[in-house]
Amino acid sequence: MRIKCIVSYDGYDYMGYQIQDGLNTIEENLTRAISAVCKKDTKIYASGRTDRGVHALGQVIHFDTDKSIDPEGWIRAINAYLPLDIRIKSLEVVDETFHSRFSAKSKEYHYLVETGEYNLFERRYKGFYYNLDKEAMKKALEKLVGTHNFRGFCSESSNEQKDFVKTIYEAYFMEEGTTLRFVFKGTGFLRYQIRRMMGIILEIGRGRESLDTIDRVFETEDSKISRACAEPQGLYLVHVNY
Amino acid sequence: MRIKCIVSYDGYDYMGYQIQDGLNTIEENLTRAISAVCKKDTKIYASGRTDRGVHALGQVIHFDTDKSIDPEGWIRAINAYLPLDIRIKSLEVVDETFHSRFSAKSKEYHYLVETGEYNLFERRYKGFYYNLDKEAMKKALEKLVGTHNFRGFCSESSNEQKDFVKTIYEAYFMEEGTTLRFVFKGTGFLRYQIRRMMGIILEIGRGRESLDTIDRVFETEDSKISRACAEPQGLYLVHVNY
Repeated sequence: MRIKCIVSYDGYDYMGYQIQDGLNTIEENLTRAISAVCKKDTKIYASGRTDRGVHALGQVIHFDTDKSIDPEGWIRAINAYLPLDIRIKSLEVVDETFHSRFSAKSKEYHYLVETGEYNLFERRYKGFYYNLDKEAMKKALEKLVGTHNFRGFCSESSNEQKDFVKTIYEAYFMEEGTTLRFVFKGTGFLRYQIRRMMGIILEIGRGRESLDTIDRVFETEDSKISRACAEPQGLYLVHVNY
Repeated sequence: MRIKCIVSYDGYDYMGYQIQDGLNTIEENLTRAISAVCKKDTKIYASGRTDRGVHALGQVIHFDTDKSIDPEGWIRAINAYLPLDIRIKSLEVVDETFHSRFSAKSKEYHYLVETGEYNLFERRYKGFYYNLDKEAMKKALEKLVGTHNFRGFCSESSNEQKDFVKTIYEAYFMEEGTTLRFVFKGTGFLRYQIRRMMGIILEIGRGRESLDTIDRVFETEDSKISRACAEPQGLYLVHVNY
């Protein structure tokens, strides 16, 4: 029986999603908790990794079990084994053709930028950036929308990746008081892509890069043109569409 | 020259305010940072301790230095030596008769209770409590206002304390969405007093204790009557009046 879960986590204290020997990761904690409830070593599949410090409101995972389950009881049981900063939000039985990663049609990420005074109670959950030219950032965001080869916006070490062509459906920001909520919806995102896009957008917002930097990164596919990378703690995986 | 500072901190990751050998405390970090800027071992005096996990928006400290200072420059310099979850908010030269602890006339603490769904991004900053009878809690708060012997509301180990008679000027809560902000203003508070008062208030709110528990604690001065103690992460030292 295949189980799909929506998972939320505060990534600030974790070394990213993926299991790595000896490190405290999200996958490590989920695997341990779900294996305990299934009473059997259980492999967890996620819609994708998130990097060290990155949060999730709607990460999606799946796993297989031969136990019969009561969803509400299982949520409680798994959460009882998880630390308080990782929570199963929902759990359901799905068709065995469902795959958290391969069935995903699109993803939504948010990036929170605080432009007001530094607030230490928000340091884990926002990036802090000042004196931003909003009009320039709006133009920069428009340039990112569409189907492009995003190789120049991803990590140089992403050699395992073969397909750099992705489609961004929407890229914009909303103002919530002194906070800017950047929204990115697209077919999928490469490693570091959103943080590097945000890095360039914020450099453009601060007047340190010009708008045509984005065109140059697209043209040359060269990830060395702008190495600016926004802080991970502003980034949230909000939703995965299937 | 005597310097007064207002300090804010996220206490969640600290072992309380007071210096203790080998432990990561607020006082330890402030002492190290201020001594570095003063280029001399410098003793820091605070308005009072806060316990492990308790936050401050307006802790007040003072120290003496023979260096001539530029307040804005000193705030930047001290903050550069502090971790990001402890910040000097303001700094000024004061008269040498000023003492952060002995000159304090009253203090204001807030306690944040979340009554809505558990939100892991707020777990460091609020207590989570459900199904609370607000009317009963209002009556409980009214009983606490005034001049009383609060011995029964403080830590049993507070033997160093001699004067248990304190005055609470105001005790009430405000509703902010599903959050209840409890406000306590008084001449001073004993160790654990607010968390134990909150513990009893929340027990009354949940119908597990009756209103007259408060009268009994006052009458008997017995801190064993209700050992309920609210979680530290909901508590904030907001303001010290001089």
